[in-house]
Amino acid sequence: MLGNFTYCNPTKLYFGKDALDGLKEELPKYGKNVLLVYGGGSIKKNGIYDQVVAILKACGKEIFEDGGVMPNPTTEKLAEGVARARAAKADLILAVGGGSTCDYAKAVSVSVHCDDDPWEKYFIRFEEPTCPIVPVGCVLTMVGTGSEMNGGSVITNHAQKLKIGHVFGEEVLPKFAVLNPEFTFTVPRYQMISGIYDIMSHILEQYFSGEDDNTSDYIMEGLLRSLIHSAEIAVQNPADYEARSNIMWTATWALNTLVAKGKDTDWMVHMLGQAVAAYTDATHGMTLSAVSMPYYRYILPYGVQKFARYAVNVWNVDPAGKTPAQTAYEGLSAMEAWMKKLGLVMNLTDLGTSPDLLEGIVKSTLVMDGGYKVMDENDIRAVLKASF
Amino acid sequence: MLGNFTYCNPTKLYFGKDALDGLKEELPKYGKNVLLVYGGGSIKKNGIYDQVVAILKACGKEIFEDGGVMPNPTTEKLAEGVARARAAKADLILAVGGGSTCDYAKAVSVSVHCDDDPWEKYFIRFEEPTCPIVPVGCVLTMVGTGSEMNGGSVITNHAQKLKIGHVFGEEVLPKFAVLNPEFTFTVPRYQMISGIYDIMSHILEQYFSGEDDNTSDYIMEGLLRSLIHSAEIAVQNPADYEARSNIMWTATWALNTLVAKGKDTDWMVHMLGQAVAAYTDATHGMTLSAVSMPYYRYILPYGVQKFARYAVNVWNVDPAGKTPAQTAYEGLSAMEAWMKKLGLVMNLTDLGTSPDLLEGIVKSTLVMDGGYKVMDENDIRAVLKASF
Repeated sequence: MLGNFTYCNPTKLYFGKDALDGLKEELPKYGKNVLLVYGGGSIKKNGIYDQVVAILKACGKEIFEDGGVMPNPTTEKLAEGVARARAAKADLILAVGGGSTCDYAKAVSVSVHCDDDPWEKYFIRFEEPTCPIVPVGCVLTMVGTGSEMNGGSVITNHAQKLKIGHVFGEEVLPKFAVLNPEFTFTVPRYQMISGIYDIMSHILEQYFSGEDDNTSDYIMEGLLRSLIHSAEIAVQNPADYEARSNIMWTATWALNTLVAKGKDTDWMVHMLGQAVAAYTDATHGMTLSAVSMPYYRYILPYGVQKFARYAVNVWNVDPAGKTPAQTAYEGLSAMEAWMKKLGLVMNLTDLGTSPDLLEGIVKSTLVMDGGYKVMDENDIRAVLKASF
Repeated sequence: MLGNFTYCNPTKLYFGKDALDGLKEELPKYGKNVLLVYGGGSIKKNGIYDQVVAILKACGKEIFEDGGVMPNPTTEKLAEGVARARAAKADLILAVGGGSTCDYAKAVSVSVHCDDDPWEKYFIRFEEPTCPIVPVGCVLTMVGTGSEMNGGSVITNHAQKLKIGHVFGEEVLPKFAVLNPEFTFTVPRYQMISGIYDIMSHILEQYFSGEDDNTSDYIMEGLLRSLIHSAEIAVQNPADYEARSNIMWTATWALNTLVAKGKDTDWMVHMLGQAVAAYTDATHGMTLSAVSMPYYRYILPYGVQKFARYAVNVWNVDPAGKTPAQTAYEGLSAMEAWMKKLGLVMNLTDLGTSPDLLEGIVKSTLVMDGGYKVMDENDIRAVLKASF
């Protein structure tokens, strides 16, 4: 735990089969006008929409609808949401959906009273909000992003071919989040495993950085072991409550800032995945899984000790009689086998990405330092080429 | 993660060598009158008192002193603190010290405006506060209890030979805590290792319970591995910043409710240790270490699978060719060797407890369920006898 840091995460979590009851405790804290934000309408089919609306009405709320949030929320949709929130004079934005819906709700929350262009201010200039922020609550129906307990928001600008995330501060965190594992049971298999890999990647991108002895790394090894185990169960039986609840809880703690405390992080897999998504609109977790193995094999030589530790502590590789590099590569092979067993997309070809997009994706990939090797354009091109 | 639960922990943590600067950000949020709570005066010798007072004065605060908090804060001291806080019209209680000082500050905070007898209301009847609560902040100088980020408060009633803890709700949590690992460097070795074992016991008492597959157990295995490793370094070199910072951070997360979420817990080691302390006034962590091995060997047959898992995942015991019980006992032996290497008190005799206190301690031990075997009086007597 080297370096100075602060930690504060006041989001109230309601977890379990009765978690939606938490809404009844939270709603009275806010004014009458609620902007109800959701995605493509699956919540209307599975009954969650009706349950939420019934509680909103019972609590005397005026409901203003803002549906149709897409998987990678766009600047155009953000402008629409801001207009709706303004028209509603929203006292609370209630996001019912997955990470995209929560991300979008947060982006709207800091833009309603913002005179500037939100894309320019928050996602290009990375400024912090200077206006009043509309409070956000979340009812989670899909697991992966951790958006329910963090300040993150990722928005896509198709005109500029950019998908950019901004991690806002405490004041933008959801005030509360409802986490009922059963609400995730109807998520299609492809989305479920995509979410699982998003969680995996969040942890690994915070893990594969730094040379120090840090409690955060040990916590992450625990989270990884739990995730790997529960994912194997969930993929066999998506209605296994215990496995799905472990995955849901792991997702929240994988990206609510805890496991990054006191250490460096390396977000290059997300940078690569977000560049791919800006060109293909592919499912987020799959863009990560498609580039992960090539990326990790590329940087392994620069962080052999950590990759060897990962192999032993997470994948139970026996290091006896092996060089650290051998142990490390064996760990990645075990991870690759697990990914294939889950049915994850293992390369950009299978993701449906055309090789002629390569140079554009290279140019769109933002470079972040913190990893075992700071990427240059040639490194990025090499990793992406190996991903086809 | 079975069952319904809520999680909310809004305490703001300032961590690192510059953590005390956080006080400058926090103090302006509160009124002028600060009750400055501390222990036996070591903070006056090591300079922390002067640093804190300088910041309080620079922030324009009126300081009211309440020193002399003893290691096991008593009902008499609590009454004194309440009187001081009332006289001061305290707007903030600032605890500078270890767990006892923080525990005491919280007990005062819920008693200042309470018309009832606090001991009876909070520690005998376990009621929740119904009065305004004075906000508490902590500057930690000793590590172990996790009191800086939880609602716990343990008070000792010598007349009744009882030491009882009450875990209060969110509203009693410290508003902020300053965690500078260097502030713990001057803690005597005996206190340091006692604190380390307190952390260990907090984790184990939440770990050794339940049969389900639960992410919380995996997080605890990570925390345990980090603690075991850092403790070995700190005991050799107490000024090793990295090790001491890992221990400090682990202590906070071992008992801020996170690792108990969705699972059962078994607090019998603390119940036994607190009964011993009520008779001997011994150092908290050492009362736990003195009874731990006899307790765990006593309950192991009722939770063999979990003890075997502990041996493998925490102590790297190779289970090949062994029964789960053999693996489990080998894990406890590894733990015992580690405890001895640290210099922990391994039995009640070495703690200086007279055997004629046995029956009194048996009678003072509160029974809590949740463990692999619910203790009756004969079980408690057997464990305590084996502890001499």
